[in-house]
Parts: sequence; C-alpha cells; structure tokens
Amino acid sequence: MLPRIHALLGLLAAAGLQAETGNQAWLRYAALDDGATRQVREALPATLTALSDSPVAESARGELIRGIRGMLGRTLRVESRVPREGGIVLGTLAGIRKAAPHLPLAANLEADGYWLKTLRVDGARYLVITAENDRGVLYGAFALLRKIGLGESVADLDDRQTPYAPVRWVNQWDNLDGSIERGYGGRSIFWDNGNVREDLGRVSDYGRMLASLGIGACAINNVNANPRVLASDFLPQVVRIAGAFRPWGVRVALSVDLGIPKTVGGLDTFDPLDPRVTAWWKSKADELYRAIPDLAGFVLKADSEGRVGPSAYGRTHADAANVVARALAPHGGLFFYRGFVYDHRMDWRNPKNDRARAADDNFRALDGKFDDNVVLQIKNGPIDFQAREPASPLFGTLEKTNQAVELQITQEYFGQARHLVFLVPMWKETLDFDMHARGAGTPVKALVSGKTFRRPSGGFVGVANVGLDENWLGNHLSQANLYGFGRLAWDPNLSARQIAEEWTRLTFGDDPKVVATIAGMQLASWRIFENYTGPLGLQTLTDIVGNHYGVSVEASERNGWGQWHRADERGVGMDRTIATGTGFIGQFRPPVAAVYESLKTCPDDLVVFLHHVPYTHLLHSGKTVIQYIYDSHYEGEQAVAEYARQWESLKGRVDDRRYQEVLAQLEYQGGQAQVWRDAVARWFHRASGIPDAKGRVGRYPGRVEGEAMKLEGYAVSEVKPWEAASGGKAIECAAARCVASFSYDGAPGWYALQVRYFDQNNGASRFRLWVANQLAGEWAATDRVPTRKVDGSSSARRTVSGIALRPGDEIRIEGLPDGGETAAIDYIEVRPDRN
Amino acid sequence: MLPRIHALLGLLAAAGLQAETGNQAWLRYAALDDGATRQVREALPATLTALSDSPVAESARGELIRGIRGMLGRTLRVESRVPREGGIVLGTLAGIRKAAPHLPLAANLEADGYWLKTLRVDGARYLVITAENDRGVLYGAFALLRKIGLGESVADLDDRQTPYAPVRWVNQWDNLDGSIERGYGGRSIFWDNGNVREDLGRVSDYGRMLASLGIGACAINNVNANPRVLASDFLPQVVRIAGAFRPWGVRVALSVDLGIPKTVGGLDTFDPLDPRVTAWWKSKADELYRAIPDLAGFVLKADSEGRVGPSAYGRTHADAANVVARALAPHGGLFFYRGFVYDHRMDWRNPKNDRARAADDNFRALDGKFDDNVVLQIKNGPIDFQAREPASPLFGTLEKTNQAVELQITQEYFGQARHLVFLVPMWKETLDFDMHARGAGTPVKALVSGKTFRRPSGGFVGVANVGLDENWLGNHLSQANLYGFGRLAWDPNLSARQIAEEWTRLTFGDDPKVVATIAGMQLASWRIFENYTGPLGLQTLTDIVGNHYGVSVEASERNGWGQWHRADERGVGMDRTIATGTGFIGQFRPPVAAVYESLKTCPDDLVVFLHHVPYTHLLHSGKTVIQYIYDSHYEGEQAVAEYARQWESLKGRVDDRRYQEVLAQLEYQGGQAQVWRDAVARWFHRASGIPDAKGRVGRYPGRVEGEAMKLEGYAVSEVKPWEAASGGKAIECAAARCVASFSYDGAPGWYALQVRYFDQNNGASRFRLWVANQLAGEWAATDRVPTRKVDGSSSARRTVSGIALRPGDEIRIEGLPDGGETAAIDYIEVRPDRN
Repeated sequence: MLPRIHALLGLLAAAGLQAETGNQAWLRYAALDDGATRQVREALPATLTALSDSPVAESARGELIRGIRGMLGRTLRVESRVPREGGIVLGTLAGIRKAAPHLPLAANLEADGYWLKTLRVDGARYLVITAENDRGVLYGAFALLRKIGLGESVADLDDRQTPYAPVRWVNQWDNLDGSIERGYGGRSIFWDNGNVREDLGRVSDYGRMLASLGIGACAINNVNANPRVLASDFLPQVVRIAGAFRPWGVRVALSVDLGIPKTVGGLDTFDPLDPRVTAWWKSKADELYRAIPDLAGFVLKADSEGRVGPSAYGRTHADAANVVARALAPHGGLFFYRGFVYDHRMDWRNPKNDRARAADDNFRALDGKFDDNVVLQIKNGPIDFQAREPASPLFGTLEKTNQAVELQITQEYFGQARHLVFLVPMWKETLDFDMHARGAGTPVKALVSGKTFRRPSGGFVGVANVGLDENWLGNHLSQANLYGFGRLAWDPNLSARQIAEEWTRLTFGDDPKVVATIAGMQLASWRIFENYTGPLGLQTLTDIVGNHYGVSVEASERNGWGQWHRADERGVGMDRTIATGTGFIGQFRPPVAAVYESLKTCPDDLVVFLHHVPYTHLLHSGKTVIQYIYDSHYEGEQAVAEYARQWESLKGRVDDRRYQEVLAQLEYQGGQAQVWRDAVARWFHRASGIPDAKGRVGRYPGRVEGEAMKLEGYAVSEVKPWEAASGGKAIECAAARCVASFSYDGAPGWYALQVRYFDQNNGASRFRLWVANQLAGEWAATDRVPTRKVDGSSSARRTVSGIALRPGDEIRIEGLPDGGETAAIDYIEVRPDRN
Repeated sequence: MLPRIHALLGLLAAAGLQAETGNQAWLRYAALDDGATRQVREALPATLTALSDSPVAESARGELIRGIRGMLGRTLRVESRVPREGGIVLGTLAGIRKAAPHLPLAANLEADGYWLKTLRVDGARYLVITAENDRGVLYGAFALLRKIGLGESVADLDDRQTPYAPVRWVNQWDNLDGSIERGYGGRSIFWDNGNVREDLGRVSDYGRMLASLGIGACAINNVNANPRVLASDFLPQVVRIAGAFRPWGVRVALSVDLGIPKTVGGLDTFDPLDPRVTAWWKSKADELYRAIPDLAGFVLKADSEGRVGPSAYGRTHADAANVVARALAPHGGLFFYRGFVYDHRMDWRNPKNDRARAADDNFRALDGKFDDNVVLQIKNGPIDFQAREPASPLFGTLEKTNQAVELQITQEYFGQARHLVFLVPMWKETLDFDMHARGAGTPVKALVSGKTFRRPSGGFVGVANVGLDENWLGNHLSQANLYGFGRLAWDPNLSARQIAEEWTRLTFGDDPKVVATIAGMQLASWRIFENYTGPLGLQTLTDIVGNHYGVSVEASERNGWGQWHRADERGVGMDRTIATGTGFIGQFRPPVAAVYESLKTCPDDLVVFLHHVPYTHLLHSGKTVIQYIYDSHYEGEQAVAEYARQWESLKGRVDDRRYQEVLAQLEYQGGQAQVWRDAVARWFHRASGIPDAKGRVGRYPGRVEGEAMKLEGYAVSEVKPWEAASGGKAIECAAARCVASFSYDGAPGWYALQVRYFDQNNGASRFRLWVANQLAGEWAATDRVPTRKVDGSSSARRTVSGIALRPGDEIRIEGLPDGGETAAIDYIEVRPDRN
C-alpha cells in the first residue's frame, strides 16, 4: 500500500538542527538565509516529474527533493506526468521527447554532460534537467542544487555542460584488512578484516559525494593489490560494493596484480605472452562482467616498489597491459597501467642516476604499442607527489597512448590532514603547464584528456583515500581537496579561487567574511606549506623512508630510493641538466627543456630540483639560496601562526563543533611549523656555515633546553635526526616520574610558557608544569601521530599563557611516562604574553 | 613533594573550548572579549595572597584563580605573604589586620557581608577582599568575579555589602529513592535508591552555585519527609553530603516529620508536650550535631496534605515547633515550620469555605508563642505557587514570630521547565507589596527579613529542586530563576531587569543583542504565561489533582482541594470579600483590605481571585471579563510563537548546543500555548455563551478534525477534559497501524500542515504524513511529558512546512501505536506557509 517513494523515508529524519560533523561535506543543504531564499523560491517550480525510474534517475529525484527541502524548506511535489502548470522535468533527452513532446528540446549532448534549460510553454514555466544518459541527468540535478546553494539565479537557465575528459575516476588505496595505505581519515569504508563491510551506508554516501562532482568510477582496493580481490569466491563481496555505488552512477574498478594468473589462477606462469595467461584473463573478465556488468575496469602497478611485472619474463609494459586490456575490451572496460615505475635500489653515488627519469625512460619507446582501452596513469610530477615538482615529461612525450594524470587528494606529503594544504593551485599549475607537445598551447590538461592527439580516452584520476571518520578525510578543511579534484576533472579551466569559494560556501555557508577568510587561507596554503617544509624544489624534507610526515632533512640521501637533494657543505640540488647532469631536462620537448636547462631562465621555484647550486647562488629575486631557505621557513611558520588568528575571527560564524575542531588542528599545525622551521633552517645553517642575515637561525630568546635544566630522574638523549630537537637533544624519563627545573632570571611581567615535548603513539605520558610551586598547566600526550619515536613527527607544543613571572621563580616540569613513551621534553620557551 | 594547591589540578583540565552544556550555569568564566579584557587586565594585580587556609577560604582562592584564568587568560600568582608590589589580598578583617597591619582597613562588617576595597600603600595597589567571616570572604570573591564578568570597572573599588536578611536558604524536595517531588531537572544529586550517591561531584558543584549567590544552607530532603533521614545508621550518609557542601559555606538542613519520635525513635507517642518526646528530640539533635557541627537546622511540614501534626494530640503548632526548636537551640540550629497548613477535604459546596484563609487562620492566634529559633516558612501567596496570587496575609499578621517567604524556583505550576517563565518579576511584586503591617512602608521583604518588627531571624527560602541533568533544571533559561532567587535573597531591591541582564551576560555572554533579546524574553515571560494559562487571578487552569502541567479548566472544581475558581454559566471567581464572601480579604490589614474589598479599587489582575463577577463585568481597562479572557489567551499564544523567532535572531551569537536546545523548547512551548489558548477560550465560550468579539474562538480556518476524516482502523474517542482536544474528540488506533485521510479542497499554493497529536509517556508511536501519495513528514512521539493519557499534557504539535497543495490532494496520516500509546490524533490544520 505504501508508494515506492517509501525509500525517501530516511531522508526526512534530519528535519531538525544537528551538529555539523562534516559527514555531509559540501552536500549539507543547510537552510539558506531569507534574502537568497526569496529569489529562488519565486523562480523554482513546485512540481517535479522524473521520466525514468532507473536507480540513477531515482537518486536524481531524491536528491532534488532533499536539497530543496534543506535549502528552501519546501518539498517538491512528485508528479508522474509533466503537469500543465509547469514544473521541474528530469529525464534523458529521449525520455522527455517521448513523454512530453510539447517541450522544445533541440540539442545533442555528450555522455555525462547535462543541460539545465528554462522553457516557457503556453504560459507555464518548465525547468528541464536533461542529458544524454541517466548519469548526466543526475549530474544536472547536482548542478542545479549547487547553483541554488551558491545563491546563483535559477530563473532563466540555459546551461549546457560537457565534461572536459571521459576519465574522471578516484582510486582508493584500501587494503582488504580495513587499513588504508596513506589514508588519514580512518579505516576503510569498504573492507574490514579481509571482507566487505556489513554496513555499506558510507559507500553509498561516498557515491553521492562523487556523483555530485561528476566522478564516475572508483577503484576500491590498494594498487599494491591483494590478489584475493579476483578470487571467484570473493566476487560476491565486490558485487555488494558495486550495488551500493550503482544508484549514484559510480562504477567499481579493481586494482589487480600481474601475478594473479599464478597466485589465484593456479597457472605456473603469468607471462603476458603465454596463451594460457591470455585465456585466464579473458575468462576472469567474463566472469566478473557476468556479476558486475558495469565494472569500470582495472588498475595495475607493475615492476615498481616490489610489485611483480613483465620484466620477470623479459616482456614490455605494453605486452603486460594489452593482455589484460583485451580481456576487458569486449565489455567496455578500461585498463589503467600506472606510469609510476622506477628502481628503488639505485646507486646514490652515481651522479647520473635519477629517479625522475624513470617514467619517461620506461614508456617513451612504447608509445603506440598500447591498445585503445589502455590508459597510462601518470603522477603529476616525475617523483612522487612532492610539494614542488615540474610536470612529468611523459605527458609531453606520449602521442599515441591514452593517458590520465594521477593527482593525490590524500595529503601523504602534505601534512597528512594535520596540516592545511589546498592542493588545487598546485594541480592547476601542472594542468595548465604548456608541454609544447605539438607546438605551443598543449597544456597537460589537454594532453591527458586526449584533446591534443585525439585519443579515445584519458583524463583525471585522484587518489582519495577517504575513510570512516565522520569528516571522511581527517580534517574538515581537507575536504576541499576532494571537491577541488572533482571540479577540476569536470572542468580544469575553473580557477582555484572559484573552487575554493564554491566549496567554502557550500560547506560553511555564505557569510562573506567566512567565505573570504576560509577561501583565502586555502588559496595561500600550498605556498605556505612549501615555505616551511622545503622551497625552491627541495621537495618535502621529510622522513622519506618512513612515515612521510615529520621533518628529517637527510632521510632522502644515501639510499636507493632516489629522492636525493644532494645538499652538502658546498651546495644543494640535483643536477638534472642535459649538459652536466642526469639529462632529465632533456626528456621535455625542446622549448621547455631550454627554459629549465639554463639557470638564467629556470624558475626559482624549481631551481634545486633541476640544478645543483652553491648556497650563495643568487635567485631571480636577488636573494641567495641559503637566505631564501631561512626566510621562507620563517615566513611559512609565521603564516601558519596567523591561520589560527584568522580562524578565530570566524567564531560564531562557523558552527561550534567544526570551529573547535579546525582551531585545534590549526594550533597543532602552528607547533609543527615551528619544528620544521627550526630543523630545516638549522640543518642548512650547519651544512652551509652561512649565518642568517637576519640573525634568527640558532638564536632562540627565552628558550631553555631540557638538557640545560636541573634534572631529577630525567636523562639526556640524542635525538635522531638531530635537527628534529632543539640542540639535537631531548631529556627522557626512565622512571615512573621525573622532574626538570630551572630558575627564571628575566624581568618580572606576564609571560607565556611554551613547552616543547614529544607525543608518540605508543603511550600517553602526563605532564605538569609548575611555576613558583603553583600548578600552571597539566596535560596528557594523547595525540595520534605516526611515530613511536622521539623525532620530528612526535614533536609537540603546549602553550600555557597568562603566567606572572618574577626573577628567581622556579619553573618546573614534571613528566610521568606511559607505555613506550618517555615523557620526553625538548625545551621550554619563555615568551612575553601576546595579550 | 607536591604543594597543597594540588587540589586545583582538576580545574586546569578545562583549558580548551568545550560544548556549552549549561552545567557551569552562570559560572562559566568564558573568555571576555579583548576590549573588556584590556581594562580589567590593567586594573587587576598579578598576585593573590589568601590569609586563611580554611576550606571555605581555599574555595575563594581557587575560584578567583579559576575565574580570572577563564575570563582573562591569566593565572594569579599565589603568594604566602602580602607582597610589596601589591596584589589581591583575601581574608577576614581579623586575619588581614594581623598579617598585614600596614593595610588600613577600618570597618565593621556583619556576618556574611563583604568589602571589596582598593588600597594604595607606598605606591603599591592592593585589591582587598575582606569580610567578618570566611563565608563573607568567599562571597566577596564571587562578587569580584561577577563584576569582571559583567564588564564593570575593578580599578578603584569600595564596595561594602551586607545581605538583606540572615536566612538565605534553598530547599530540595528530594526523596531518598532519588526521585524529586516537583523536580524537572533529572534525578536527585544527593540520593539514589535509598542511599547517598557514591559520586557527590554535583553536590559540590551545586554548593559552588549557591555560594556564588550568597545562599548559606540547603535542606536536602523532601518536606514530605522520610523518617529514615534521622535514623542513627543513616547519619554517615548525611555527613558525606555536609562534607561536600562545607567548602562552599553551604550548611545542610534536614526535613523532618513530627512523628519521628515514634517511627524512628521507638516511642509510643510523638506528643510534643510529652517529656519523653522532648528528651528524644534533644538527644537526636545532640547526636546530629556531634556528627555535623554546622548543621543548619530542620524544616517541618505538619498537619497538611496527609502529614501528621500536633492536632493528633490536640496541641498547637507552637507546641510542636518549640519542642524541636529547643533541641536545636543550644547548637544554633534553626527550625522552619511551614505555614502551608490547610484542609484538603473541604466541602466545596459551602461558599464560605476558603483554602486561602488557612495559613492566617492557623497561625494568627499563635503569634508570640514561637521560640526565637523558629521561623515560620510562608509561601508567597495564600494558595500554592499559582500564576497570580496576592501576597499571603500572614506576612502582615505576624509581629512576634520569625518568618521567611517560601518562593518556588522549580516551575511546578509554570510549565515544569518546558515553558519559559522568569519568576523574578512575580516574586518582586510580592516582596515589594506593602502590607501596611505597621503603617505604610512595610513591604513583605522588610517583614520576612525581620526588619519591621526587629525579629532575630527570617528571610528567604527557595524551593530549587535541581537535578542531575547537565543544565540542572531541565531548561537552560530556567537557570535564571535560581540565579534570581539568590540575588533577591541577597538584595531584594535589585530590579528584575538588572537580574535578568546580569544572568544573561554571565550565562550567554555580553553580545548586546543577546543580552537585550534574552533579558527581554525573560522579563515578558511571566505575564505571557499568565495570559495563556489563566489571567485575572483565575490561577493556573491546570490539572490540579494530577500533574499540575497540562490544561484542565475544571480540575480544581467540585473537590476538597480548595483551588476553586467557581466559573459557571453566570460568572467566575471566588467571592473572598468581607461583605458577602469568605472573608479572606479581612485577613489583610485594613488599608490593604479596603483596596481589595471594592471592585472599584481591586486590581484587574486579581479580580476573580477576590470576587465573583459576571462575565460581562467591565474591568478597569474597559474590557469585559470574558473578552479579556479571550484576548489574553490569543495574545499569550502569539507572544510564545514570537519567542522562537526572537531566539532565531541569535543564531551564531549563542553557542550551537544551547541554541538548538532552547529553540526546541520554545517551539514545543509554542504548541502548548496553542492548546491552552484553545482549551481555555473554548471552555469559557461554552460556559458563558458569549461570543468572542473578534470572532476567533470556535473558528479554526484550515482545521480538519480527526473525527471528520476518512478513518481506516482509527476510532473516535472522547477526550477528558473535553477542552483539551479540538472538538472534544480524538481518534485513537487500536490496531498495529491506522490511517486517517481527507481530501484537500482549498486553493493551490504553498502550505504548512500542523498535525496535532498526542505524545504520552507510555509509548513511542510513529506517524507518517503523506500528501498526494508523497511522504511529507515522519516522526516518533518520544517526548517526556507527565501523562499516560490523551489530554492537555500530551497534546503535541508537528509542523511540516513547504508543501505544495493542489485541490483534490489526499492528505493522509498514518499512525503506528506503541505500548500504551494509541497514536492518537486531534486534528490537522492547513495553513498558508509563513515563508
């Protein structure tokens, strides 16, 4: 007896006000303010006719009802026919022409594109949301809701949109055990303990988010693939996920391993040219497509970082790619072959060795050898998602191969969602970079989308790695990167500012101060992050063989992983020139290579990525390299300190929960920026022997090192790397309770005490700070950071302000270790109170 | 090794931002904005010397540190001596004179009073907080913090305060099982399951709140006392509570039962004149004081509402009071004898019977017969905490007896913390009312404080009934009543506006719009409540023999409880005149009685409390009584609807959590005000037969009664009282699922549907509302209201707005009963959408 829209039931529950958890991301559909509402209410019809009952069309209809109810407080009337009074009409072009031939809709649309069109017929007004396919209709519904959310007029629409590229995918590096490689938003939404999750509600929610951006496929397991994902008895699990995504037009893809015919298939080989291997892949693909007819395809990482590959049989990447691709082709599946192939056991002593060369070296000769449903998936830069890299030369090399740019949404090298970094400006710099592949005017975006060389496929792949955390990515502000990826994949000509402002309005509301402040912070954040972690193309100076998080300047050196910056006493940088270096620059087309080859024209931002220079080398700005390193780190740290002040200006304008969560994150980031600043500046200060012209590096007024205090129980230890701790040393407690103290000998006044301590993930030490025998602060070291050691990742800061100091006061810190954590302390800094 | 201020440890935990739960009430010490901060920071010394280490003095010191840290972000330096650089000095006059004789402090202060005094000595500035006793010092510390919180200057203080009256107590009607009689803020903070609670943290917090208001004692069990509270083996439990209160200067008092010598003591009598009874009370008091030397005293309810009393032996109330008081006297304890003595089995047919007379009738002859440590505890009005009563005449009668006014903080007859009612304006009307007890100029406040007749004791008793709910009283805005009681008890000359603004600033911050809006709502709320529940002295027209919550106009009639309003076809009101009525007016002194006796001078607000008048009687305003009843209910309902709109204007200015909780409460209250309006207006309309001049009563455009719908499963039932349901009827569902529907026949357009249903406390029915086969709303009836029946208390409202209706649309409500709840529905009202 209940009609079929019973399925909408759940959507109605959220009528009341609720805490903003971030779980709705930019799809909150919060009530608009009265001014905006009036305009839209007048323009918007009251009825909604959906001319299809496919699951995707149902999603479009449900989303429109939900969004308009949320933003405008109105429930659209669902009509089964197109009413005479006018209304919103939702359907494919074919569907509308059949059901409502009186609506004049002369247009041809491409797949996934949409058309929002206001029509006036016999005095009635229709708002038509139409497309070639149901997925396009869904994208059109989201587009209309976005317009309403952004306060744009919907009175007289004629908006026809076609996606810039056919490939708009995300990859998730989720392991079947539920962990996520380089995931910072909690455990997998797909997997737990080797199986698919019982509750796939978050998968459906994720599908909705992806659909709102026009993203049509998602690879649901790590590219370092567990072969079990292709086992026949595992298939029903994948089917369930495909079912959860399907109503949102999101197709499932799988990461596979080239060795699977052997490990899962039971063959004694995985040689791509062996007919048994060919047959196995074909049979496996047929089996998969019987269960999941809309499977999007496969992703493969081969011959890289320990994965098996065609080299085992002396075959080429093209051999490997084509055998799989031919199994997928009859079903319309795509095969993404990752360009991220390099040798991680290179001899670092050979100055001609260069990891940056690897992709081009590996794939240049294979151009033209790949089938038409193979897509080469190429990271934006030649190394690995570093803070600053040139575009990968391979984009400009390939002419007869489909390609896709792989952008990393998850912030592996960008503070792992503990630091604010909006990646869209960086992505745009790559996408807009002119590779001169067919003369001037062939930016990366045109190459990867297939426009330049008229390739049948290509586009954008984002490594998203969302997780079960309520806000998906571990940080409310990091959601902007997922949003920005999707928007760029749809239209890379959008400006970073437009994307930042769109996202802020939809996510935090349209208060102009909120929009200006948050968008401003986002837009500045990449440069700021670069400034305090490694500018001039140094790459992120992090623990490169470990967690990729904390500062560790030398971690990349003297090992086979090839992320060398070759800083020593004399200078810094990788000589990648054609003339004297590794020749990497020669992989670019000549007009690009010419700019990079000469120090006269090489941009400052990439100077030490491409050249080895002395510290005294003068940049185009007129500054020496060493002074630039000092200055940028101080500027970066200062800018991060400002984030919290900027955010505080939004109190009361942003909901309390997200206000507090973001503020805590920004305060933490401020402490990390200090560690980075001091570590990098001191490292280069020691290496170069050149003093900071502004006298800051090595001088820390008010700072008292732990090792200089009077210690009871605490013992001095060497920190590795040395630059991660002030003075290279910390004090650690091996007893149940230790005390460190010193006597204050400055002027009387109001002060803040900054305690620099270490908060590892293997214990919850407690600290108490006493001033003149009075308890001034106490806290526990319970943060989640990716280290069990006293190092740059665990370095943390506690500020206790509003303390009246008098000469002779004893300042005493008491540490109570816990588990593997030694209540380690670096220093206490006495600073004039900022109030 | 840890210094003794270790006890402050817990206070430091709350450094970060937290959700506003209301648990800190007006003592949040939220950070002040920068402007206010600068002024205070400059004026406030950096050090704090406390010249006593009593627990109360420690509380004062800790509170100052906590408050200044919270509001100003500074930690006062605790010094053991008075420093030469100046500082805050905290101590009794005697203590300071001894430890710091150089500070000139010539003053005499009364117990519990305090003096905040800025002194300049040898160029140093001291801020002295001093008092006669430690409790006064604590009150001074709270006063300084309040000044800071209110943004007042603390630069040059000379503020000497003496409490208006010696008695400033609260009573809690907590039962030993953990329930609270007339408590609306959760279960008892003291008791659970017959014993004291394990965790008395909330008792300590409550002590702090009371101390901040200068309240010095708390009776911790129901006046309908469980005799076990005086059993010897129970004493250790009381001792624990006294210990939790003691650091805040709050002394414990106990409610006792006059029969205890028999029930607990094992005597065969409790005759107050029996020497064994005398001896028993003395021995019991001595035992108690050995365990609790600062026990404040006892409270007794006798010969009332089923409690035993001296009448059992033909003794007087004075006999009963004095035997107990004499046992307490050697220890300094007070004995509160409640004046709330009346016969609840009166013959309602006798027009001369009058419950309002009872207190005066019972105690007039005993004036002068009570010992000096007996205090007669008299409710503000002669009946029982009704929305409008005159002052109790007994206040003006007694000349030789200590008295205290009993004010009810818990909102028994004022919407039970589901309705916003700020009681301070009402209390002030009583306290300021001139009783002419010794000529003009003897207001109630002067009488109860003992000033008029120079009594040794007397003052203010508030029935608080806070509970374990995070916000103590069940409603954030109700906290203002506890605050207001305390402030009035300290100084009844404070204006209601000052109290409302103080409370709002301290509780919600000093945004001028927030202060103006909330204080404005509070100040208007008593009159508004009176308007929709029973004006002109009708009293609250509630279920008087039941829950005292929902509307039930006739519940007070034709029974022995004596709260009659005697409304019938001819007129309304109790004739309490001397000339023709019960003579109640004659209990007042002649100047007061003369004003009340004549309809010419009797205030409109009390007209039907004191007179029986025809409905056509013309009020001073020129309106008839019946039209006033109609108009006031419509005005009251309209004003409550406005509350939510006013509150919505504070979005973003009030923290999200309290914003949402209060908004939900105000929306609920809006629904209840509708029921009250319709019920009372319709009842008097039927009784009087006189139409509403404005044509509203009995005409409800857009309303479709449940009984007029097409019913599937639902059956029509009579509601009791009839006026609680529109049309006197509801529809109830005896099946698992029932449906009621009707066809909409109005104009097309946007509408809101108001569904009036019944939400009892014995089930959680579900409802679904469909419009033209589309789900428009669903909800569950899960509110906590004090009824298991379909009546005025359970009548609830759900508004579903933004619905596009077209003629012929079917509007259908589906009910799914649960437990004892029948998914009952009163009506659906179709209203034009307010947007």
